[in-house]
Amino acid sequence: MKVISKISQMQAIMKQERMNGRTIGFVPTMGYLHEGHLTLLQRARQENDIVVLSIFVNPTQFGPNEDFDAYPRNFERDEQLAKKAGADYVFYPDVEEMYPRKMSVAVTVTERVNVLCGKQREGHFDGVATVLIKLFHIVTPDRAYFGMKDAQQVAVVDGLVHDYNFPIELVPVETVREKDGLAKSSRNVYLTETEREEAPALYKSLKLAKERIDSGERNPEAILSFMKDYIQTHTSGIIDYIEIYSYPELKEIDTLEGRIIIALAVKFSKARLIDNMTWTV
Amino acid sequence: MKVISKISQMQAIMKQERMNGRTIGFVPTMGYLHEGHLTLLQRARQENDIVVLSIFVNPTQFGPNEDFDAYPRNFERDEQLAKKAGADYVFYPDVEEMYPRKMSVAVTVTERVNVLCGKQREGHFDGVATVLIKLFHIVTPDRAYFGMKDAQQVAVVDGLVHDYNFPIELVPVETVREKDGLAKSSRNVYLTETEREEAPALYKSLKLAKERIDSGERNPEAILSFMKDYIQTHTSGIIDYIEIYSYPELKEIDTLEGRIIIALAVKFSKARLIDNMTWTV
Repeated sequence: MKVISKISQMQAIMKQERMNGRTIGFVPTMGYLHEGHLTLLQRARQENDIVVLSIFVNPTQFGPNEDFDAYPRNFERDEQLAKKAGADYVFYPDVEEMYPRKMSVAVTVTERVNVLCGKQREGHFDGVATVLIKLFHIVTPDRAYFGMKDAQQVAVVDGLVHDYNFPIELVPVETVREKDGLAKSSRNVYLTETEREEAPALYKSLKLAKERIDSGERNPEAILSFMKDYIQTHTSGIIDYIEIYSYPELKEIDTLEGRIIIALAVKFSKARLIDNMTWTV
Repeated sequence: MKVISKISQMQAIMKQERMNGRTIGFVPTMGYLHEGHLTLLQRARQENDIVVLSIFVNPTQFGPNEDFDAYPRNFERDEQLAKKAGADYVFYPDVEEMYPRKMSVAVTVTERVNVLCGKQREGHFDGVATVLIKLFHIVTPDRAYFGMKDAQQVAVVDGLVHDYNFPIELVPVETVREKDGLAKSSRNVYLTETEREEAPALYKSLKLAKERIDSGERNPEAILSFMKDYIQTHTSGIIDYIEIYSYPELKEIDTLEGRIIIALAVKFSKARLIDNMTWTV
């Protein structure tokens, strides 16, 4: 496994790999790797000749109230995990390499952003799109892997890739869960013992909602009301949002039809958990 | 020579050409080809294994007062000219193919635009950048060719390519001129006989300005004043602008140093002519 920090070197290597007919799978991350990232790497490993992981804490996707400097970093640990997961290259540039000067062209995500977590993170997805365009041009992957835990990010990247005809297949990867259904997250350790016992109710509420819809319920309000009740009854958490949209457009729908997403965020005493389910009704 | 109208087909062919180790030269145009375009094609022919010409009258780069429908089109003639010039592929999509739905990510050119001709064409370069990102992803060229006649467009594309790390070499190609120095343009035919005799004075003013600067003049105002006098004395045209900037940044400069551009636009009775010169002082 090679660690590359320069853009020009990365582009030269990828060009050579492509010339040799190798397919490239790409997992973009901000480092501090967890099981979710490793699942993406495993999937990329299965489907491509070459696997590239990028580790870059991207300043442009942090809001004014979000602490870029405090974001956790541990490159040595990440390097070991990436190696074990079978990555061929780790692209690990610094901020100066990625943003050497004031940019003359700006990218703004205008749809799919003012809902779910995006509502509270103005400009976040502009930064995500900006860095992904750059990374896609540097790594030139055949396939790029993103976790469905952040379904809104997948929706935004889907828009970017299709609108601008990137010759890249976006591969959304299912959320990794604990045995009791709780979506894996580095934040789960901040739950109290009681909260940890309650937390699987979030996924349970999604599964029960899906059962009701698959059994014929078509009214979003009825589903939202059921889920709200269920979570309030079974947990001590405070619901931040429960929302239902078309997916990946993230548009409000009056009738539950076609591909939909149900997504939620619930605040516990020291951790805010998110989860979602997407499927075609 | 093959004419391709579908994005997916173009991407599949280009992928195959790249897998076969062929380099791709790309000349993006809005069609109605003239000698300037043919020079770009010849240059691309010399430097690449495969030459791709795109013909697409891009609606997003036309302003509200600019008539997209009235833009001249003649595909049969273009096709013959492209064939003669040695193009391998002509990418010729329709508007529905390029813009099938409302886009969810917008591109805005924030620098290098509010000067020269860009001042009067708000949003024009946003449309240019948008379509070029798409075309670059569809054609995946090694080199893209642009005429220096539109030096501001080259500056904007330079910003786009560098800011977003496109693995593409931008090749600016010298303006093609008549024997008397007049920059070739489809608009030259609208000049009266007298105006046509006067028009070489535009290029002459640029050459004389360059001589003065290369001989030691460092004051932009002195050069602008000299050029204004020269054009007013030698032509009946009305000066729209004469401007001097750093290049490709298009920033105002107090002292003539480094890479600079002198650009001008002059209105004759029925034609507005532009010309420019860039070099390193």
